[in-house]
Amino acid sequence: MEGLLLIIASMRFEVTTLGTGAALPARGRFPSAQLLNIHERLHLVDCGEGTQERLRQAEVNFNRIGTVFISHMHGDHYLGLMGLLSSMHLNGRLNELNVYGPPELREVIDVQLRASQTYLRYPLKVHALPHASGVRVHEDAYVEVITLKLKHRIPTTGFLFRERTQPRRLRRERLMEIPHFARTAVKAGEDLPLADGTVIPNRELTLDPPPPRRYAYCSDTAFAPELVEHIREVDLLYHEATFTEELAERARETCHSTAKQAAMLARAADVGTLLLGHFSSRYKDNRVLLEEALPFFQNTLLAEEGRTFRIDQRTTVENSDVEVT
Amino acid sequence: MEGLLLIIASMRFEVTTLGTGAALPARGRFPSAQLLNIHERLHLVDCGEGTQERLRQAEVNFNRIGTVFISHMHGDHYLGLMGLLSSMHLNGRLNELNVYGPPELREVIDVQLRASQTYLRYPLKVHALPHASGVRVHEDAYVEVITLKLKHRIPTTGFLFRERTQPRRLRRERLMEIPHFARTAVKAGEDLPLADGTVIPNRELTLDPPPPRRYAYCSDTAFAPELVEHIREVDLLYHEATFTEELAERARETCHSTAKQAAMLARAADVGTLLLGHFSSRYKDNRVLLEEALPFFQNTLLAEEGRTFRIDQRTTVENSDVEVT
Repeated sequence: MEGLLLIIASMRFEVTTLGTGAALPARGRFPSAQLLNIHERLHLVDCGEGTQERLRQAEVNFNRIGTVFISHMHGDHYLGLMGLLSSMHLNGRLNELNVYGPPELREVIDVQLRASQTYLRYPLKVHALPHASGVRVHEDAYVEVITLKLKHRIPTTGFLFRERTQPRRLRRERLMEIPHFARTAVKAGEDLPLADGTVIPNRELTLDPPPPRRYAYCSDTAFAPELVEHIREVDLLYHEATFTEELAERARETCHSTAKQAAMLARAADVGTLLLGHFSSRYKDNRVLLEEALPFFQNTLLAEEGRTFRIDQRTTVENSDVEVT
Repeated sequence: MEGLLLIIASMRFEVTTLGTGAALPARGRFPSAQLLNIHERLHLVDCGEGTQERLRQAEVNFNRIGTVFISHMHGDHYLGLMGLLSSMHLNGRLNELNVYGPPELREVIDVQLRASQTYLRYPLKVHALPHASGVRVHEDAYVEVITLKLKHRIPTTGFLFRERTQPRRLRRERLMEIPHFARTAVKAGEDLPLADGTVIPNRELTLDPPPPRRYAYCSDTAFAPELVEHIREVDLLYHEATFTEELAERARETCHSTAKQAAMLARAADVGTLLLGHFSSRYKDNRVLLEEALPFFQNTLLAEEGRTFRIDQRTTVENSDVEVT
């Protein structure tokens, strides 16, 4: 059992919503920021004012964060970044940090580092995002990050986190036939040649890996049906739901979405679960937004400050045998 | 009594310490920010990340703040400013805001307003501070603000808030002799001519106004005895006390002060009360800093998050008669 727990831990794919508010934060609600843990690599998505305080509350070691993604240059999505960069520096960070954001972000960072005469100890790489969908901007061993062109007042980019295909899984009942030295090759899909010259086809020894998990982050945006093709069947879709239908006109004017519109998009894209966030401070109780979404998409949840949403590994029906990694 | 209470309220001179932490905030401690209420005019001094959240907790209407003073461009003293400026805008502010800060502050603000394509509805005037002591940079009907050249790693300016001399006070026992139409002139120091040609000298009708109250803000700074002449006998001196004596060498290297050094300066300047702040996050209990200061300056207090320190009006011994305004 201990081994099994370890396996689950090493396969994490989860989203912690650190802030769920819109531009004018309400009491107890913070501006946008999410922490993603994908196979124990930490990614920060948006970084509103106070994010480092939220990270501290969640007991996250800042220096474990390897990448930061900033969707756009409205203050409630990036104003916490400078403080975080500075705290990483003061905490003795030495490992590289990659920050992805709009082209303007680099100047905003540079001007402030210059003004404070701060010379970061760690390499900071600031990458300008294209304002287009479908561009792979980042990858590591476990995930690829692909851009989503959102529809907002200023250029805004959402992100699709797509788990990379994992190695094939060895069939438990054939395990004893596969020598240890050959296992990596077999997991990679190779057939197994035996000493007597015969070859065991890979399909007999392995199962397909679990399907890659996918998470899409769409904030801030007006209703944008052109996103559907990019986020089809993602496991989890975070979509802003700033307003109720009563304020649909206000949503249109400000390039935001209503909860119903978020649900309509989730339905059109046939996603697994819809997570609503970026709530206007006028709503004391966000359940009014949930109630507007549910009739259009039943599997809808409300983001909450500090709550973690885990995407579990699915095994497809054909591959429902016991899994050994 | 109701009248008396009203008088006291209209004569406020108080400091609320919204944040008392240093660069690396500890849990429950926030970076530098103070709210001054001087005769119901609100001034913000420094504005670390999260200041708008602190102001909201203190139930302060952001739009009542007329001036902001930023001491220097280290993030823990200014990173909350952009969010505050933006919230004022979103809250419909129309009245002018004056911001005083280092010359670099203007570019930092401009770059970010441009990046977010924000066009503020209210007039924002950003004034560059000289890096020198004794320059009057701001005044209104109730206060003058004078610079203090601090000794830090980057140019840093402290502020002396000096209440403007108030009108002379009418002697209660002579009140009936002074016609209503003449009272403003008499309060301004003029003699009172009577219908019969005689003149009552002003000194007979009035008392000196209470001595102007003064508050000095010194953060961040190494021990700087050259400040003494500028802050002599102020009612309240806020002075940073980042470290204990054990870390005096670290204080020297980082251009900060120990609690003892703050107390030594308060003693040399013969101030009324010393208020310590800007505590390093390494101190879980700030009383260790207070204990180091007390032997050198007895009238020492610790700044606390959200606590208000009131400077009461003093009447000098010669003018200890009952006061009528």
